[in-house]
Amino acid sequence: MRHRAEIVVTLKSGVLDIQGKAVFQSLQQLGYGELEDVRVGKVVHLLLDAPTPEKARELARGMCEDLLVNGLIEEYRISLEAAER
Amino acid sequence: MRHRAEIVVTLKSGVLDIQGKAVFQSLQQLGYGELEDVRVGKVVHLLLDAPTPEKARELARGMCEDLLVNGLIEEYRISLEAAER
Repeated sequence: MRHRAEIVVTLKSGVLDIQGKAVFQSLQQLGYGELEDVRVGKVVHLLLDAPTPEKARELARGMCEDLLVNGLIEEYRISLEAAER
Repeated sequence: MRHRAEIVVTLKSGVLDIQGKAVFQSLQQLGYGELEDVRVGKVVHLLLDAPTPEKARELARGMCEDLLVNGLIEEYRISLEAAER
């Protein structure tokens, strides 16, 4: 059974986000005065084969811990859905 | 009224994702044989002030078109929620 996992990886709230600051300034200069804060992270889309959604989530969590996420400064969220094809 | 917008930016499906390929290979080498595909993108979290959710979404869409997204090779999705603080 195929599953799609979307993993959103962001810096923990106390960690300085230099890229976010740069984007914030650029958007301010473009006239977006309504903007109060910007944080930038990464997203990883996985297509994986697993017998159950629980197993798929377990695999995705393992990939986060093993490679995708630096637990010292980053946190992550996994969303899962069944993949048709 | 404060809103949080999460913008997920990914490469269009026909565009070669070199970073995704690299992550795919690394995860394969770590033993994740269940993995079939990996795509890597970015996520931008905005905190912004707008009178209505519709206006907040319009602002976020403008920021995507003006700066955050390269429409030639990337596509994006906006999720919106009210921010408490």
